[in-house]
Amino acid sequence: MEDLITCVEEQPQPPSSLPNSWTNQHSDSAQRTDEEPKAVGGFVLVHAGAGYHSESKAKEYKHVCKRACQRAVERLRAGALAMEAVAAALVELEDSPFTNAGMGSNLNLSGEIECDASIMDGKSLHYGSVGAIRGIKNPVLVAHRLLCEAQKGKLSAGRIPPCFLVGRGAHDWAVAHGIPPCPAEKMATKFSLSAYKRNKRKMEIAEKMDTPENPMKRRRQSSETENGSECLDTVGAIVVDQEGNVAAAVSSGGLAMKHPGRVGQAAHYGCGCWAQNSCNSNPYSTAVSTSGCGEHLIRTMLARECSVALQAEDAHQALLDAMQNQFISSPFLASEDRVLGGVIVLRCCRCEEDPPSQDLQASLVEFLWSHSTESMCVGYMSAQDSRAKTHISRLPPGAVPGHSLAIEGGVCRLTSGAQAAP
Amino acid sequence: MEDLITCVEEQPQPPSSLPNSWTNQHSDSAQRTDEEPKAVGGFVLVHAGAGYHSESKAKEYKHVCKRACQRAVERLRAGALAMEAVAAALVELEDSPFTNAGMGSNLNLSGEIECDASIMDGKSLHYGSVGAIRGIKNPVLVAHRLLCEAQKGKLSAGRIPPCFLVGRGAHDWAVAHGIPPCPAEKMATKFSLSAYKRNKRKMEIAEKMDTPENPMKRRRQSSETENGSECLDTVGAIVVDQEGNVAAAVSSGGLAMKHPGRVGQAAHYGCGCWAQNSCNSNPYSTAVSTSGCGEHLIRTMLARECSVALQAEDAHQALLDAMQNQFISSPFLASEDRVLGGVIVLRCCRCEEDPPSQDLQASLVEFLWSHSTESMCVGYMSAQDSRAKTHISRLPPGAVPGHSLAIEGGVCRLTSGAQAAP
Repeated sequence: MEDLITCVEEQPQPPSSLPNSWTNQHSDSAQRTDEEPKAVGGFVLVHAGAGYHSESKAKEYKHVCKRACQRAVERLRAGALAMEAVAAALVELEDSPFTNAGMGSNLNLSGEIECDASIMDGKSLHYGSVGAIRGIKNPVLVAHRLLCEAQKGKLSAGRIPPCFLVGRGAHDWAVAHGIPPCPAEKMATKFSLSAYKRNKRKMEIAEKMDTPENPMKRRRQSSETENGSECLDTVGAIVVDQEGNVAAAVSSGGLAMKHPGRVGQAAHYGCGCWAQNSCNSNPYSTAVSTSGCGEHLIRTMLARECSVALQAEDAHQALLDAMQNQFISSPFLASEDRVLGGVIVLRCCRCEEDPPSQDLQASLVEFLWSHSTESMCVGYMSAQDSRAKTHISRLPPGAVPGHSLAIEGGVCRLTSGAQAAP
Repeated sequence: MEDLITCVEEQPQPPSSLPNSWTNQHSDSAQRTDEEPKAVGGFVLVHAGAGYHSESKAKEYKHVCKRACQRAVERLRAGALAMEAVAAALVELEDSPFTNAGMGSNLNLSGEIECDASIMDGKSLHYGSVGAIRGIKNPVLVAHRLLCEAQKGKLSAGRIPPCFLVGRGAHDWAVAHGIPPCPAEKMATKFSLSAYKRNKRKMEIAEKMDTPENPMKRRRQSSETENGSECLDTVGAIVVDQEGNVAAAVSSGGLAMKHPGRVGQAAHYGCGCWAQNSCNSNPYSTAVSTSGCGEHLIRTMLARECSVALQAEDAHQALLDAMQNQFISSPFLASEDRVLGGVIVLRCCRCEEDPPSQDLQASLVEFLWSHSTESMCVGYMSAQDSRAKTHISRLPPGAVPGHSLAIEGGVCRLTSGAQAAP
């Protein structure tokens, strides 16, 4: 990869496959991307969770997205592949006490932190995942290591290496593979502990209403826990590297007050993240990372569904349709009163018809985010950018969380080749 | 449901959608089905694992399949829906010391039994799953209970009920919901303990070959563990009830000598089982249960892929194509030297054009099994049959496990209605 030298390209007009709806619906942030087009040697899009991001903490959410983008881009600039870059972004997101992943994660019913994380490499199509893992600061590094170990082939006596480990076994495997354990008291923050106490009180009050005369009263009431101002979900990142490989990763502390042992979409193949390089049957390389209510995202396999949808001509319309028909209005969630989630996606294809020169290869990256939650904080950056752009996307005024969608995005062009451009 | 009275119908000719290949490839057993067509009030197809079934134990394998069919049919005759019937079949399969599920499961690296199981209801599209659960005799009952609890709606304070629990948390949830714990020593059998000792010796020998001079020698060698004469995988069942609802379930002790905490396809949504009633976009109700190498079945999402494929006109060809193109030759498993697995599938549709009478409804059930393992033991029965049919399907002589496929099946007609036929 040392012989690859990247250069800046002017942002092209959105291709014909991006119709008016794209231009109409994208945000100020995405417009800025159109106005300041430059992307070389790779691109990263991250999110700090779909949920509710208070204005008072907007700065922190944006800041962690920015840092995550920078970490990924540092790796890309050093010649790393997409998978290493996406893991680096996730570590930064997990390390923030403001996100519901790694340190500062939601506490479960027993007051403990159990995390889910997974990673997928679009080149090898390998996947690694951990569920309900305790006492590991960066669950994504365990998922990443599982993926790398599986790529090496079989274990002794022909045993097939695991791609998904949970609970105590996952923790022990991680430690045996050199990932240090982290004491539980260092994983929790003042913020997560106080949220736990508040949620516990709410539950106690709700359960007092559960009298023998009215046993179902505790059910089907509106969710204060979910609507709590601290409610944030899974974080994630998606990357395309200068060779055009894609990777995706996701990490989560799970729903607040979940039952111990509950595993959400972040550990579930096809549900938390998806990455798949282009191939004969798929013209686009695609990467997806999801956030939101794990059970909804599992039962709709949203990450993979979005990846499949993104092979359609119009990426914006395809994502909108997928979020509407296969998530909010999915027959799999017909009994749910509201469906909460968000995704970040990118797709990438070679620009065959308009190469900048014989020695350079150009790729077009279309990136989008969409959510049915009140807000979603995203950041993005190309390897050529000096700093990341960040944005808190919000549902339009009057839109109903769980029933309405926001969708925004942008386009950038990556150029790389064997010689520097003049 | 009490007002539904079922009656026997003659077996129709296979529909035009079942071409010559069907007739050419189906087994004696399936031929018998064609000759003795009767199916009323529901149908069940079970398997006792894809793997290698020795002739010396053929009787036991068939016997457990027979009992599992009978349990399901007893429930169907009592008016139970598909989901209850499929759970009853799984309990019987788990309770057999000869299957790798529940009691008698493979032991993991630490000499412990950790089980995976899941169940899906085609009517509500709900799903319940447990992974790496210890000390529970019938993991499928925990998955079933999770599904039932989730169907009741939200928990106190608006919390979303889990659909997937693992490890200690899953065990504790089960016990709190009235499912009794089972001491570890009762889960292991003389058979599973002696297999563990043998496998451990094989591993020790293999790892002695792992010298500093040749650290990779232990990898990529042919698998004695996998080829061992005791090697059997996940068990499962699929059911259609007299109302036309489908359900599927799966249960597994996982790979022998797996790492503690490893979760296989039996707990993975879309990978271990799938059930989906017909709807506007899908003319057929479909149910699928898989068996084999969990990692291969996860990465190809084989259960769901088969379900999607079965919406094509020709069920036999669709399954053959899915097993060939989306399993054995899947780009997701390009690096694997052989791909081991098996499926049982059924699909069902109303016979609109040929109703036996105005008061009766007829359904056509097409059922198939296919495997790339040396053998697969199946059993099937309609609610009208006096006893189940069982069959050990084997690859043809000279076929290579992991590269070749066997595929067989049959057709039956279910009739039910408000009045008995004359």
